[in-house]
Amino acid sequence: MVEIFASERLKSLYNTIESYVREELLPLEDKIMHLPFKEVEATVLKEKRTEVKKLGLWAPHLPEKDGGLGLELVDFGQLSELLAHSPIGHYVFNCQAPDIGNMELLHKYASDDIKEQYLQPLMDGELRSCFSMTEPEFAGSNPVRMATTATKDGDDYVINGHKWFTTAADGASFAVVMANTAPEHENKYARASMIVVPIDNPGFELVRNIPIMGEAGEGYMSHAEVCYNDARVPQSNIIGGEGMGFMLAQERLGPGRIHHCMRWIGISERALSMMCSYAARRELKEGRVLGHMQTIQNWIAESRAEINAARYMVLHAAHKIDQQGNKAAKNEISTIKFFVANVLQQVIDRAIQTHGALGVTDDTILSWYFRHERGARIYDGPDEVHKSVVARSMLAEHGLNLKKSK
Amino acid sequence: MVEIFASERLKSLYNTIESYVREELLPLEDKIMHLPFKEVEATVLKEKRTEVKKLGLWAPHLPEKDGGLGLELVDFGQLSELLAHSPIGHYVFNCQAPDIGNMELLHKYASDDIKEQYLQPLMDGELRSCFSMTEPEFAGSNPVRMATTATKDGDDYVINGHKWFTTAADGASFAVVMANTAPEHENKYARASMIVVPIDNPGFELVRNIPIMGEAGEGYMSHAEVCYNDARVPQSNIIGGEGMGFMLAQERLGPGRIHHCMRWIGISERALSMMCSYAARRELKEGRVLGHMQTIQNWIAESRAEINAARYMVLHAAHKIDQQGNKAAKNEISTIKFFVANVLQQVIDRAIQTHGALGVTDDTILSWYFRHERGARIYDGPDEVHKSVVARSMLAEHGLNLKKSK
Amino acid sequence: MVEIFASERLKSLYNTIESYVREELLPLEDKIMHLPFKEVEATVLKEKRTEVKKLGLWAPHLPEKDGGLGLELVDFGQLSELLAHSPIGHYVFNCQAPDIGNMELLHKYASDDIKEQYLQPLMDGELRSCFSMTEPEFAGSNPVRMATTATKDGDDYVINGHKWFTTAADGASFAVVMANTAPEHENKYARASMIVVPIDNPGFELVRNIPIMGEAGEGYMSHAEVCYNDARVPQSNIIGGEGMGFMLAQERLGPGRIHHCMRWIGISERALSMMCSYAARRELKEGRVLGHMQTIQNWIAESRAEINAARYMVLHAAHKIDQQGNKAAKNEISTIKFFVANVLQQVIDRAIQTHGALGVTDDTILSWYFRHERGARIYDGPDEVHKSVVARSMLAEHGLNLKKSK
Amino acid sequence: MVEIFASERLKSLYNTIESYVREELLPLEDKIMHLPFKEVEATVLKEKRTEVKKLGLWAPHLPEKDGGLGLELVDFGQLSELLAHSPIGHYVFNCQAPDIGNMELLHKYASDDIKEQYLQPLMDGELRSCFSMTEPEFAGSNPVRMATTATKDGDDYVINGHKWFTTAADGASFAVVMANTAPEHENKYARASMIVVPIDNPGFELVRNIPIMGEAGEGYMSHAEVCYNDARVPQSNIIGGEGMGFMLAQERLGPGRIHHCMRWIGISERALSMMCSYAARRELKEGRVLGHMQTIQNWIAESRAEINAARYMVLHAAHKIDQQGNKAAKNEISTIKFFVANVLQQVIDRAIQTHGALGVTDDTILSWYFRHERGARIYDGPDEVHKSVVARSMLAEHGLNLKKSK
Repeated sequence: MVEIFASERLKSLYNTIESYVREELLPLEDKIMHLPFKEVEATVLKEKRTEVKKLGLWAPHLPEKDGGLGLELVDFGQLSELLAHSPIGHYVFNCQAPDIGNMELLHKYASDDIKEQYLQPLMDGELRSCFSMTEPEFAGSNPVRMATTATKDGDDYVINGHKWFTTAADGASFAVVMANTAPEHENKYARASMIVVPIDNPGFELVRNIPIMGEAGEGYMSHAEVCYNDARVPQSNIIGGEGMGFMLAQERLGPGRIHHCMRWIGISERALSMMCSYAARRELKEGRVLGHMQTIQNWIAESRAEINAARYMVLHAAHKIDQQGNKAAKNEISTIKFFVANVLQQVIDRAIQTHGALGVTDDTILSWYFRHERGARIYDGPDEVHKSVVARSMLAEHGLNLKKSK
Repeated sequence: MVEIFASERLKSLYNTIESYVREELLPLEDKIMHLPFKEVEATVLKEKRTEVKKLGLWAPHLPEKDGGLGLELVDFGQLSELLAHSPIGHYVFNCQAPDIGNMELLHKYASDDIKEQYLQPLMDGELRSCFSMTEPEFAGSNPVRMATTATKDGDDYVINGHKWFTTAADGASFAVVMANTAPEHENKYARASMIVVPIDNPGFELVRNIPIMGEAGEGYMSHAEVCYNDARVPQSNIIGGEGMGFMLAQERLGPGRIHHCMRWIGISERALSMMCSYAARRELKEGRVLGHMQTIQNWIAESRAEINAARYMVLHAAHKIDQQGNKAAKNEISTIKFFVANVLQQVIDRAIQTHGALGVTDDTILSWYFRHERGARIYDGPDEVHKSVVARSMLAEHGLNLKKSK
Repeated sequence: MVEIFASERLKSLYNTIESYVREELLPLEDKIMHLPFKEVEATVLKEKRTEVKKLGLWAPHLPEKDGGLGLELVDFGQLSELLAHSPIGHYVFNCQAPDIGNMELLHKYASDDIKEQYLQPLMDGELRSCFSMTEPEFAGSNPVRMATTATKDGDDYVINGHKWFTTAADGASFAVVMANTAPEHENKYARASMIVVPIDNPGFELVRNIPIMGEAGEGYMSHAEVCYNDARVPQSNIIGGEGMGFMLAQERLGPGRIHHCMRWIGISERALSMMCSYAARRELKEGRVLGHMQTIQNWIAESRAEINAARYMVLHAAHKIDQQGNKAAKNEISTIKFFVANVLQQVIDRAIQTHGALGVTDDTILSWYFRHERGARIYDGPDEVHKSVVARSMLAEHGLNLKKSK
Repeated sequence: MVEIFASERLKSLYNTIESYVREELLPLEDKIMHLPFKEVEATVLKEKRTEVKKLGLWAPHLPEKDGGLGLELVDFGQLSELLAHSPIGHYVFNCQAPDIGNMELLHKYASDDIKEQYLQPLMDGELRSCFSMTEPEFAGSNPVRMATTATKDGDDYVINGHKWFTTAADGASFAVVMANTAPEHENKYARASMIVVPIDNPGFELVRNIPIMGEAGEGYMSHAEVCYNDARVPQSNIIGGEGMGFMLAQERLGPGRIHHCMRWIGISERALSMMCSYAARRELKEGRVLGHMQTIQNWIAESRAEINAARYMVLHAAHKIDQQGNKAAKNEISTIKFFVANVLQQVIDRAIQTHGALGVTDDTILSWYFRHERGARIYDGPDEVHKSVVARSMLAEHGLNLKKSK
């Protein structure tokens, strides 16, 4: 815990949550890795969620009046790191992506009807949701290019389009879809809107859970390819208003990236701890273990330094968002996005190399992270885009104004 | 093809094999990635193997009298790169690890009986084999530490031990097992022997195909955990002689590492080609594709340089083995082992990043390589061990003699 | 300025000092690079120091009663970054190494006589000092190995030994020398003591200003090789007490490393600013400047991220020292030492590459930093030693206790 | 020596030259580093050059009829590596840049008069020359941008312009100047010509020897800023013909980059050897030297691998130039240019780090190389340009044709 950023509230919760994750969630890792997710979900995870509610730890990011802990981003970030020690930590505490982002969106921008029908049960953990933005035919790095349309017809929108990486669509109750309501608007940033589409809509087609790194997964642990085929929903399902899609996406992504980054730091810390632990006991020969090797020591120290650096940067960025809002922290958010994703992958890689043959097996969680987190340098904007954001901003301060290369 | 290293024989074969891989094997990639291996094997791979035999391209590494192409290592290396453009290239041409290593061992050191019973059908592609050396309880980086024993009892050896990463044991007909026949021998390097154990031996227990990077695989595409429980075999099943295990392992690993390295170069070349191809067509916006981005160009150029460097180093090492034998090329072998494995992983990583979201899916072969080849920096000696070999040799030239830290 | 760490005092000083450095010191850069140091010192630097005193900005690290600004380490760190925008910033404000370390040592541990004779004029900027620890015959990474001795003779110590990297000895008035007073003490850490030796002592021989990276320098800008030939000083010249040398060295190095790190961050920030500024204006062709190149943008963004990371880590470490003392912050200090030194060199390297041919000339300060700061990864403990410190500490938490490899 | 590329001629010379460099030139290093160059040149270097002539080793790159050894590029490359073990190896053998490039140009393209007046004494080592292309106002990465003009006036050209990095102009007898003879030619590549200008021309002004990395140098060891102020020379001083400047520059740069690369490999090999030697003897504590440290071992092994890779790549490129000419080897040349320059700097950096404090002093040649070779990633085209060349060529093979971004 970084004390300077820790509220009294956080301090009172920290050890409890740390122990809970360690004692109750880490032992489930084996199940998560080796059993079908829905099976684990239906039995043990459901039970754990109930437990967390009873313990009063549910949904740390939500306001207290909505059943949460009412933490600011900087406090939530520090808890989020703890939850990330387990691959299902966030899920069990109901602060998992993409639901957490959808909760924030709906909370601020949805109609009362939508709130009642979807937001409340989402906050209560009674259903799940998904977010449908990326399209296979268009580079995700250019967020204003998409082909999905929502056309008005009577009181409805009729949505057509092809999406993928609609994470966790399998088993979700509704999707928030990004679609062009004004595809010819001359302001590219005003073309899209966000609209709620129930999964049981006849126009919603879950094409497949995309096999990713050898695993299609299922339920919450999956990423769907989805077609919207004349999916018809009432116009009141829009979130925020026509043309606000891009703005809402930006608003969502700010804290979303803090969430990812703190999660990655938790994973990195876990991997580092496993690396130290294995190095301290794995014998090379009589009286000599891996930890005696200077190369392993270098990896430990470099990982320690990089994770510390990452954590401070993320907490300072979260603090800035808390104080000054997303927009003011734009550069900080881009900076951590690429910095922390790279730290994550380096640390995981070193941890695997330290574990030798064991490291590539599924006998530890490391191989799971290696596969599941390769995407971190890609999703929510690849490294290259975020670097460009930061550089353009700095160059502008030095008098060079570069148009966005969209 | 690097002409300076290409024999006339190689030149006459090169284009044929290149086309064969491209036209006949690449289209199978989807099946390899998405169907159970044994199903693909039983149908299409079997057919392809027959085809390759008919085309007179079978087993390029074997002497012509044994039905092969009789190529030297340096020529075989260049073909091996081509075969590696497909994940089943080597298998279809019957020069896949671990069988290729077993063929070489048995050829030089096995009794005539063993040769007749096992080697001939192995060379003919009628059965498969495996190699059983690594033990979970001992760091593979120290090859003289193992607990498996082969105790004489009458005319037999009785073998007991616990192995893993016995690659391709599932469906194989026999294993070559490394076991201590003189566990207390004061010369640590004289303790072990290699012994042939049929898989149907009642003492051979295939515990599991180890789940690796999310996939246990099956048949040729698997890595087994194995127990030897009083596995009894005739003493004549020994290869080479008692106490020769370590020496034979070394002999096997020299060309084995050339094989791996050339395979990695083929994979890298394939990944680079995919990267270029995708960069040349993936649109970012009207009139601008990925290939316009300087970062992508940097990755392409750096990959080009590193792969070229890797290929030259490996061919020069192969040439040295051909001319002067394994032992003389010890440092070259260690040098390429760590250098090329790292090139491989960097190139795959860049190719994935170039492909964005698509890169982490199983819609291309890149994610398959990402998972399957993470082990390259670990198996056959981790980077760290090979670096130490090279450094100790150079330091010795400068007057510092370091005992092996075993 | 990182607000969360800024006291009101700091805030009131920050802009003043930033402007002073920019307006008064940066213009002197050319002189510093191209004229003999003593010439610049005698004229313009002397004048600037007087100016700084008059402005009430003198010696920010010293207590107010001693004529300083009385800042805590975390505040001083932030100012130190500003001063580092100029190569003579610290010197002009009288908080330059090694004098700052000597001030701290003498303040806490010297006799009143020594304080009056040496400390007071040092704080007043009337003389300079040096610190004589490293010996050419012994690896500096092992601080308990040294051959210099201080032997009691009557009321005196008689000192003999050979030192180098006695920074700024040329023109200094006294040296603090590390010498073994009990060379056979079984506790290696109790062998050495620190003793004040006036430079005009007949036993003090300045062998040479060591040519470093092409430049021997002079005066404050030099690093001397020194011999102590029967240098005789009163026993009261000892600092702290016999056998306290190692402990005092440790005490000195804690804040000393914060000082270095903040200075390096200031240099890095300066180099990044130059990189942006040049990229924004250097034309490649009509309408296209360096800043349009994605590679340059990557360098800018990566530098931004790394410098931010470095700054946060250093300020958090300084804060910990302020709150809990040096010892508690041992790992943090080692972590920043290697992390920040590497950031520094990467940023300087990128800035030079951005400047092209101009970057290697002495027409900018970059080449000066490139040469002068290569030592950062070596002095005050090479990267490798600090990594080992951090790793040993973490391994100990996981149950592996490694003896210091001294 | 890489045997596969070594002619009988090379083999007969190799050991002689290796010994000569080691025994006769390495001992001069101290003088080169610490005395004014002209002083060393006038005494000992002159003598050594005479010695080399007598030994029949003079000018290995020149045809035998011109007093050289008549080696192909691939052989010369291997010798060049040996010469590079000393900073004045190439100079003593009269194959130093920029003279070697000028010899080649004049040999193929100059008039008989120019050959007699300038080329013959240049080949004989009686005078030196320089090459005047880069201009401070224009990015060197774009070779078709320059402002220097050569205007016809009667039988003469009148040259005006501002150049820098006119290497070795100080003390040279003539310059080959790149100037626009048709500045408005619509084909940008046909604007410039190369013209011989004697240094004693009244219009030739040597503004300064540019201070580079702390050292302006002098004579052969300097890089001049030059102004051409109405420098009038006969039109017959043109090399090749009007408008051929760009083509000749390209022709010059092909082998020139091989020369640089082989020189860098020689330097790298030297640095690696120093690293091993120091590691083998520098004591850390009783019975433990630097070479025991795994980090040092890693650096040695990585350097070994990278240098080997570099050498093979360069010799294969040289072989391709010998067989197929510069143009065919364009990509290979760009590839080695950036790859080898980076190997060089990594190896030097590791060697310095291994030497600790000693490494930054001028007591070894390492600090000299650190400063003098930072330019390697910049001159003759920065890394970034060469990467772009390679990538554009590969992308073109995949169907994307990028215009040169000039």
